[in-house]
Amino acid sequence: MAGFLSDLRVVEVSAFIAAPIGGMTLAQMGAEVIRIDPIGGNIDYRRWPLAPTGTSLYWTGLNKSKRSVALALHKPEGREIARALICAPGEGKGILLTNLPASGWMSHAELSKHREDLIMLRLTGNHDGSGAVDYTVNCASGFPTATGPGGDPVNHVLPAWDIAAGLYLATGLLGAERARRQDGRGREVTLALSDVMLASVATLGYVADVQVNDSVRPAMGNDLYGAWGRDFPTRDGRRVMVCAISNRQWQAVGKATGLTDKIAMIGPMLDVDLNDEGGRFEARHAINAVLAPWFARHTLAEIGEAFAGTGVLWGPYQDFGQLVREDARCSTANPMFTTIAQTGVGEILAPAVPLGFAERAPAAPAPRLGEHTEQVLAEVLGLTTCAIGKLHDAGTIAGPKE
Amino acid sequence: MAGFLSDLRVVEVSAFIAAPIGGMTLAQMGAEVIRIDPIGGNIDYRRWPLAPTGTSLYWTGLNKSKRSVALALHKPEGREIARALICAPGEGKGILLTNLPASGWMSHAELSKHREDLIMLRLTGNHDGSGAVDYTVNCASGFPTATGPGGDPVNHVLPAWDIAAGLYLATGLLGAERARRQDGRGREVTLALSDVMLASVATLGYVADVQVNDSVRPAMGNDLYGAWGRDFPTRDGRRVMVCAISNRQWQAVGKATGLTDKIAMIGPMLDVDLNDEGGRFEARHAINAVLAPWFARHTLAEIGEAFAGTGVLWGPYQDFGQLVREDARCSTANPMFTTIAQTGVGEILAPAVPLGFAERAPAAPAPRLGEHTEQVLAEVLGLTTCAIGKLHDAGTIAGPKE
Repeated sequence: MAGFLSDLRVVEVSAFIAAPIGGMTLAQMGAEVIRIDPIGGNIDYRRWPLAPTGTSLYWTGLNKSKRSVALALHKPEGREIARALICAPGEGKGILLTNLPASGWMSHAELSKHREDLIMLRLTGNHDGSGAVDYTVNCASGFPTATGPGGDPVNHVLPAWDIAAGLYLATGLLGAERARRQDGRGREVTLALSDVMLASVATLGYVADVQVNDSVRPAMGNDLYGAWGRDFPTRDGRRVMVCAISNRQWQAVGKATGLTDKIAMIGPMLDVDLNDEGGRFEARHAINAVLAPWFARHTLAEIGEAFAGTGVLWGPYQDFGQLVREDARCSTANPMFTTIAQTGVGEILAPAVPLGFAERAPAAPAPRLGEHTEQVLAEVLGLTTCAIGKLHDAGTIAGPKE
Repeated sequence: MAGFLSDLRVVEVSAFIAAPIGGMTLAQMGAEVIRIDPIGGNIDYRRWPLAPTGTSLYWTGLNKSKRSVALALHKPEGREIARALICAPGEGKGILLTNLPASGWMSHAELSKHREDLIMLRLTGNHDGSGAVDYTVNCASGFPTATGPGGDPVNHVLPAWDIAAGLYLATGLLGAERARRQDGRGREVTLALSDVMLASVATLGYVADVQVNDSVRPAMGNDLYGAWGRDFPTRDGRRVMVCAISNRQWQAVGKATGLTDKIAMIGPMLDVDLNDEGGRFEARHAINAVLAPWFARHTLAEIGEAFAGTGVLWGPYQDFGQLVREDARCSTANPMFTTIAQTGVGEILAPAVPLGFAERAPAAPAPRLGEHTEQVLAEVLGLTTCAIGKLHDAGTIAGPKE
């Protein structure tokens, strides 16, 4: 079996989340991903959270399974090595993934002089090339003003646009490489972080809702929109999210709580059809009023027992600590996770790519910065030990710190 | 030029967001995507928001550029046609994308009897096959308790896990098809929505933060974590998000507001290094205290003028209405957008795939349900008009409603 993404090599010149997630996804699927950084690390190398040693849990989390090459990118000699790595020959090679300003030597036009069929994936802030990050894209998206109980806007904490952008980059990269196998042509594929946001908002119908209905989705706390679902506090101070999309899920809520008869009074009372998801949305305040006391009378464990096997869609709220300590899905009982030894961090739980397939490899640690500099220069560029030693002495390349 | 994803055909049997976004992304990149639905539509066909005609803005947004085939999937004859479409011969064909329970006739084992090298992408709720949706995955993720000002957890409104899952499916599909071209083998690729969440939380360092530091990230409103950034109200009742990741961006904030000297007093006052992103995070309350009056004294327009060309990373908060009406990026001035005529909806702004490449096609509308039933059965299965007529009369297939 050839394996997933065998013979695919991606050179990543990146920082932060989006491009690194794109590269890591491909690396965890089996591609060779070489991340090039300036000597000493890029701007994301010390990003919080940190381990007690100062090693970034963020950087090591986002760069698992990659090879690390550290080069003096501010010097022509360092750039020449980067270019040689990016443009090295071979099918499935000659692919650059970057979210750094790709002008000058790193532009598609310049690099294509050294490999005509170069594929380049390039993330920018906005489509006109101007800067934007997840935070400044998100505030414009409409979602913060629709999040929470209303009033002041609430930012999401998950860097959702960055994650989506990283996965678009991975998809686009595989698409461009597939096309190159058919027609032999290189391509530049661009992606603007704000376009990821705009496409998502429009795809979910919110743009059309404004254009067609003149309707602006307001904040409605933790209530679902257009169907029934919300959070309820439990007797023991926990909180659960419960929802019903299908009629079967909806009927299961009534059955499991023993409140079918009381819920049935709501339809005639409010003149809504509770067998319709929109009707359940319209009647949500009455539905919640009937159900809330039931949750308030039961502990999380009792609710779990009452819902087990019923088809009710629900789950407990967890903070990051509870997720790690109490949720079996966040442990090696989940085949996606293994325990790895990460330099500077210690033994930690680490996920493989969430896609499950026969050849999926378990998580491998992130490299130390510059860990593969010498190895990659020898393997990919055929440099001799002597030549590598000279580059090292000249400060053009760097290995890992002792 | 062969074009992006030419000769790739994906059959999608799906509902809601994740699998449809995966299929739509590939369709907008040039693949032929055939969405099969039960006659009358699947469970997502009437999901809100709706146009005045009752047409779902959600469904039409999520299924652009696809072909639609409507079959009586509850009958053996309907399933046989679905199976024939899924398992039709040809390189780049024989690919099923689904988020429905794939047991019985739709299992990989059963379908593989009809096409040995079948590729199947299958989304589930949890890795053990149990049910979960974006809402019940999100409450477990730790993010809602870290979102907002603290206190009750705040659900995100963006279906971020679904979007990421859809893009993982697209990536996995292209990866499996690439592998099949090399080794001729089919594959089943699974993805659990909760694994998308778990992998993301771990990748960003939050799992390791608990394991290594015994630290659980708390809610901190709209403040950035580990760097400086937050929202500020303006004189004219608007609100802006401002942040600084790099030192250059940080210095730009002081320069553009004319507050460099005052900000410089904070470092010695609190014994923190404001040239370090972590130091700026630690000193954020003092920084915000110095900056907030400046924002309160200026209108959004004045702030925009003061920041123009300075390198400050910032943006206004917008609700969905302001996004559509005021943001030039959300208009046909952005090459990603065109105006399309969507049946049942009217003329709306619609995005192409956010990836930009030479052959990118503009947005095409979603099909009417069953719009391509006859055409696809003729083209892919070679059925005659007479055979198609009989299937129609027997209620096994359906075209679009008049």
